[in-house]
Amino acid sequence: MQLNDFLKHTSEWLKGTGPNSDIVISSRIRLARNLDKLSFPHWANKTQAVQALNTVIDGVSKVNYLKGSTVFKLADMDGVDKQLLVERHLMSLEHAQKTENKALIVDSEEIVAIMVNEEDHLRMQVMQSGFNLHEAWGIINGIDDSISKELNYAYLPDWGYLTACPTNTGTGMRGSVMLHLPALVMTRQIDRVLAAISKLSFTTRGLYGEGTQATGNFFQISNQVSLGHSEEEIIENINGIIRQIIDQENQAREVMVSRNRAILEDRINRSLGILKSARIISSQETTELLSMVRLGADLGMLKDIDRRRLNELFITTQPAHLQKLENKKLSTEDRDLKRAELIRSRLNL
Amino acid sequence: MQLNDFLKHTSEWLKGTGPNSDIVISSRIRLARNLDKLSFPHWANKTQAVQALNTVIDGVSKVNYLKGSTVFKLADMDGVDKQLLVERHLMSLEHAQKTENKALIVDSEEIVAIMVNEEDHLRMQVMQSGFNLHEAWGIINGIDDSISKELNYAYLPDWGYLTACPTNTGTGMRGSVMLHLPALVMTRQIDRVLAAISKLSFTTRGLYGEGTQATGNFFQISNQVSLGHSEEEIIENINGIIRQIIDQENQAREVMVSRNRAILEDRINRSLGILKSARIISSQETTELLSMVRLGADLGMLKDIDRRRLNELFITTQPAHLQKLENKKLSTEDRDLKRAELIRSRLNL
Repeated sequence: MQLNDFLKHTSEWLKGTGPNSDIVISSRIRLARNLDKLSFPHWANKTQAVQALNTVIDGVSKVNYLKGSTVFKLADMDGVDKQLLVERHLMSLEHAQKTENKALIVDSEEIVAIMVNEEDHLRMQVMQSGFNLHEAWGIINGIDDSISKELNYAYLPDWGYLTACPTNTGTGMRGSVMLHLPALVMTRQIDRVLAAISKLSFTTRGLYGEGTQATGNFFQISNQVSLGHSEEEIIENINGIIRQIIDQENQAREVMVSRNRAILEDRINRSLGILKSARIISSQETTELLSMVRLGADLGMLKDIDRRRLNELFITTQPAHLQKLENKKLSTEDRDLKRAELIRSRLNL
Repeated sequence: MQLNDFLKHTSEWLKGTGPNSDIVISSRIRLARNLDKLSFPHWANKTQAVQALNTVIDGVSKVNYLKGSTVFKLADMDGVDKQLLVERHLMSLEHAQKTENKALIVDSEEIVAIMVNEEDHLRMQVMQSGFNLHEAWGIINGIDDSISKELNYAYLPDWGYLTACPTNTGTGMRGSVMLHLPALVMTRQIDRVLAAISKLSFTTRGLYGEGTQATGNFFQISNQVSLGHSEEEIIENINGIIRQIIDQENQAREVMVSRNRAILEDRINRSLGILKSARIISSQETTELLSMVRLGADLGMLKDIDRRRLNELFITTQPAHLQKLENKKLSTEDRDLKRAELIRSRLNL
């Protein structure tokens, strides 16, 4: 698959389908795995890093499910192309920044992505649309089983999978759910909710993972503990927390609709009106306005809004996507113009 | 004419026609006149006030041009009705507030309005659309001549017409022009321009006359001196100043279009987008957004915008007009809802 092909289709996690897709954008399971008897990437010398890279790529290529996958060698790629992969949530910002002996393996549906030589030798993820951790787990577990037949994982019976950072040791698993929580933000309950889940050893991040701010009312919530419980237990634990947050968001939406319907309709319709008419618009303002429009669609206040088209705009309006669409480097000013043009063309139908 | 009839037609000054109507909304001439040997209204006792009121109404009713006029006795009117007349620029806010023995006489086209027992016994005005002081003067001069055959004006050969406030003595005339100066405001030149004309004895007011702030980039500019020059000289003096301001606004518009076209198009299109989609909107925000849309129409950036419909919205979205349209008292919150509804119905065609 060429990079430009990404622009022609919608990532699985963006399809706007799946359980609770009015609040849950996507569910993601990632597993951290390392090769036995080879230094972790941060400690590896060049020979070891090259060896790990080749071993992983070679092993993964033999797995049936991943036969049609593309291997991106990051050192050979230009900045915009790497940023595109970050914007599509296929790899971390860190992976795009230090690229020596690193790779990304992605299947054609963008369901599976494997970072090679990031913090661990393998960081594999499966993303699904909606609230769907179990399905994501089923897929990644199968892939992990197949890969484990090709590669020798670093594993100790008492500890589980060994990882560069001790917080990942054990299952090596992290489950994350991307939530859209506009009502909890607008009713100023979000800080309380996030404080409560942080006490339960969950972390909250923004749209683009570690170190990014929550914009557009999107929150990515994931478990911190990966040791001492089975994968299924961890997933059930996350699911329980997410179900509570979904309930709270739904309650907050009901309260807003019953008490402040006009104010809500005003904000939602203004957001759509601005998106349909702006000639210059930043990435951040776009995300915030799209968030309100999505809420309007979810609440049935806006008719004829295609949720999938809306979800796509969250990603296609990002800087690298815009530049790939235009097929050239664009300054911030030019991007703000092209972004507004793209949004108008998609929403004024 | 009934008050409700006002809602069915567009005031002459709002028609958006006449010379320079892209910048000049309307031109207005008013004359202050008093009855001979009767105390000025502020000093009059009740008997004198009633006598002045009846004398003026009686005299005016005999003038041919004013045969079909309506006489509003302000003490008999409710607050919303009086405010409606203020919003249509037919009388001053002061005249609406102290109503004992006061009246307003208006012709059916709303070209001529005569306040009785405001600061002077007669305050008559003629308003015309666009930059048109000469025509306004021609009309009011004819009416004044006719009225002077029915009433004895207080007049001294050396002083001219006597008035309650000495600043009006002499011709008793004030010419004002309502200008829309968004480019001078946006390019931050407006303060310099207004400071310069104030040195030339001109005053600047907002949309609703004395004591009101300039909103929506509207400025009402009028002469302060009414003594020592003929009416024609005063009008030529005002015209000269206004022509310079029109030139400066036009230059500022050209500069903005050539240097910041995209930013301007963005602001103009967003303004229209918000007006077309808002569900709650204040009077002030409405005026500001309509100002930008009007600029967009004037610059040819917005197509299919009817300037007359736009001008009407400036007035019909005002509080009293909204309440008359709905035929009931409305709270501020209800007005903000109804205003948004009215705007949407007029702009989404």
